[in-house]
Amino acid sequence: METINFSDLDIAPLASTLGRTLETIYRPATGRVIPSETQVTSILPEEGVGAEALPGLWQEIVERSTRLAEPTMLGHMDTAPHPVAALTDCVVSALNNNLLFRELSPFASQIEEGLIEAFAQRLGLPVSSTGTFCSGGSIANLTALFVACGGFENIESRDRVRLHVSECHHASVMKAAAVLGIPKAHILVMPGDDTGRCQPSALDEQLSRHAGLHNIVAVVAGSTIHGAIDPLAEIGAICRRHDAWFHVDAIYGGALCFSGQHRHHLAGVDVADSVVIGPQKWMYVPRVCAVVLFRAGAEHDARFGVSLPYSVTGAAHRGQWGLQGSRRADALTLWTLFQVIGTRALGLQIDSAMALTEAFHGRLVDRMMTEPAHRPELNLQCFSLNGVTAEDEITARHRRMTTDAPGWFSLSRWRDRLYFRAVLLPPETTLTQLDELLSALCDS
Amino acid sequence: METINFSDLDIAPLASTLGRTLETIYRPATGRVIPSETQVTSILPEEGVGAEALPGLWQEIVERSTRLAEPTMLGHMDTAPHPVAALTDCVVSALNNNLLFRELSPFASQIEEGLIEAFAQRLGLPVSSTGTFCSGGSIANLTALFVACGGFENIESRDRVRLHVSECHHASVMKAAAVLGIPKAHILVMPGDDTGRCQPSALDEQLSRHAGLHNIVAVVAGSTIHGAIDPLAEIGAICRRHDAWFHVDAIYGGALCFSGQHRHHLAGVDVADSVVIGPQKWMYVPRVCAVVLFRAGAEHDARFGVSLPYSVTGAAHRGQWGLQGSRRADALTLWTLFQVIGTRALGLQIDSAMALTEAFHGRLVDRMMTEPAHRPELNLQCFSLNGVTAEDEITARHRRMTTDAPGWFSLSRWRDRLYFRAVLLPPETTLTQLDELLSALCDS
Repeated sequence: METINFSDLDIAPLASTLGRTLETIYRPATGRVIPSETQVTSILPEEGVGAEALPGLWQEIVERSTRLAEPTMLGHMDTAPHPVAALTDCVVSALNNNLLFRELSPFASQIEEGLIEAFAQRLGLPVSSTGTFCSGGSIANLTALFVACGGFENIESRDRVRLHVSECHHASVMKAAAVLGIPKAHILVMPGDDTGRCQPSALDEQLSRHAGLHNIVAVVAGSTIHGAIDPLAEIGAICRRHDAWFHVDAIYGGALCFSGQHRHHLAGVDVADSVVIGPQKWMYVPRVCAVVLFRAGAEHDARFGVSLPYSVTGAAHRGQWGLQGSRRADALTLWTLFQVIGTRALGLQIDSAMALTEAFHGRLVDRMMTEPAHRPELNLQCFSLNGVTAEDEITARHRRMTTDAPGWFSLSRWRDRLYFRAVLLPPETTLTQLDELLSALCDS
Repeated sequence: METINFSDLDIAPLASTLGRTLETIYRPATGRVIPSETQVTSILPEEGVGAEALPGLWQEIVERSTRLAEPTMLGHMDTAPHPVAALTDCVVSALNNNLLFRELSPFASQIEEGLIEAFAQRLGLPVSSTGTFCSGGSIANLTALFVACGGFENIESRDRVRLHVSECHHASVMKAAAVLGIPKAHILVMPGDDTGRCQPSALDEQLSRHAGLHNIVAVVAGSTIHGAIDPLAEIGAICRRHDAWFHVDAIYGGALCFSGQHRHHLAGVDVADSVVIGPQKWMYVPRVCAVVLFRAGAEHDARFGVSLPYSVTGAAHRGQWGLQGSRRADALTLWTLFQVIGTRALGLQIDSAMALTEAFHGRLVDRMMTEPAHRPELNLQCFSLNGVTAEDEITARHRRMTTDAPGWFSLSRWRDRLYFRAVLLPPETTLTQLDELLSALCDS
């Protein structure tokens, strides 16, 4: 191959092949959902094999990748995206518009602004709120905590920061604290209840003890292990009283704002100073797509952004905000999916997943060999097998499930004990499938 | 719409439409490359319009987005990706494999490891080097500088850090410093030559003055304005002598490692402690895709990673490394493109872009009305119009180019003066097109 000219490629036949490839991804398969690893023979070849090889390369990728589209692949907060979003992502990739500069993303900039405003409104934040899309929940939490610390405006007095976090905080909160240079001694983990939900009285006491310092409180709506939701309203009121920054990590639980039946779990999020939500989870778009929102809006311009010269259209460049520079137009994929499915259908799906989790919990109670570890708050459920307590035995069963079962739960550690864990995220998972998976696990 | 079941969608006809949509993206268009913004009427509709509306939605997105595939869209370090990469991105999005856990990305984890090893080798770094893909150059620079500061292992003594940066550093280096809590007084900008290239003697003197402190030197290979490359070999030797961390921001210039004729520009990168490269730029994959590499490998495990329990296969989870958690399998897209085109064809494209930039520089010299601002080092060229010195007049001409010309240069400020700037990144740009664009600009 002597050139890499874009016009050399005949796109139409490849698009048909792409369609067939996607059909194999979304078609239910038999056999294991997590393929074993085998050797990779070519990494950076000097001579390319040409576009004729693409169908084979895609097939290889599909066969050697984990089948997240499977309704029985329930191990993590991870599912395949809605196929509308996967297809649209191809348009987004080809256009490659860049949220850094408005000239490089006129429509994506407008859509991002529209979605940020609409999400803020859905969560009850004031119309003056601002925010940005960013590449995943960890970057979103880092951005929020950076701004909470003073952001670009004040980088001098970070030693006065005291970070109060839920017991069931996400790992990215601790990563962010390390990046920001907050020493471990200045991070206070609030004691939680049985699923790690923080106890407001403990926070109140902690904040009193640290009065006069720069207090930041980071709680979670939808924890990784149990889907626990901290008592947002009570915590918010305490933060207001102590003049502490109130951050809500709603990367997982934020989608509840679309549920008719369960949005009350988010009550209190409207007083947060910063909120992060993760469309890549329960809004069924491909990763990585997260959003950070700030209630203070323009008041935080200097904290949250590095100003850029205005665009040729006179509007602000989106690259002014946050920690990233060039950004992919993930907002376009999310927007397109919402145009196609609407918010009501998403809400119904969330309600249906919650009902399925209740039913699954019932099965875990009814079965002789299984025991749920908690009442489900969201669509996550941890459980154990009666009589299977040795870690060796638990991991051995889990390994057999990985290699032999047509589905997958994960193993999660909570307060030094290992549990099986199900996240009921794929839209087409049935109670029958859950029963079969449980039987396979019990009999293994 | 009552459900969002994935199986409701008939993928094949949509894939054909997708193919036609991509053809319109990659087909040369007439008219402006940057559309004007018009009102958006729907953001979060309650009722979706159904998948039948997808072709129309995609068409709207294409028509309202900037045409980066145009060979005359030369304003920034931004082009459309190779269509092979755009198509493959759809497979990557649908699979949605997650680099956080190995069980969620067995093949992508292997490919990422293979590419990191291969890039390190190409750059002359030792085989023990390690690294990770991350979501864009800003996160890559932040990750590198975080590790340079001590990473997760030492977050206590960041006040001893002195950060020495090139005059032509990327904005993300200063953003990263703010996030890390390095005060402005501890950031020393090295005086540069005419295009900002740092002068080794000045660095030597600076490091002597700060002996005994935690010195980090961040230089650039391919600056944003001129494509300037700092004298890496000399700087590397000085860093070694002073025991300073040597970071090379090669987000743009890193691709030179594939060029037969121009890889010598990177001489000295092999002694760097950390290097970042950006496949999303000159390797023609969609944004955001960057790679951070560390020479010390396992020695930096505790700086660079938060350990995770080993996977069911016994291998390390890729999510152990870096600042992100869930990550998209961008490595698969890059790998697929390399299998199709090979490294030699990419190198030829880079050489051809360098030759075109030389020829363009010649035209700027030959024309009466244009004057190049510098000799081209990479495929970037800044220039001015003789007799057009008032900023108002420069921006007015630029605005006319934006609305009327079938192509686009950007405006960039360097040492308080505005220049027109061309980045010759699209593979099919011709000297004739450049001539026509120059004529349009001169006559406007």
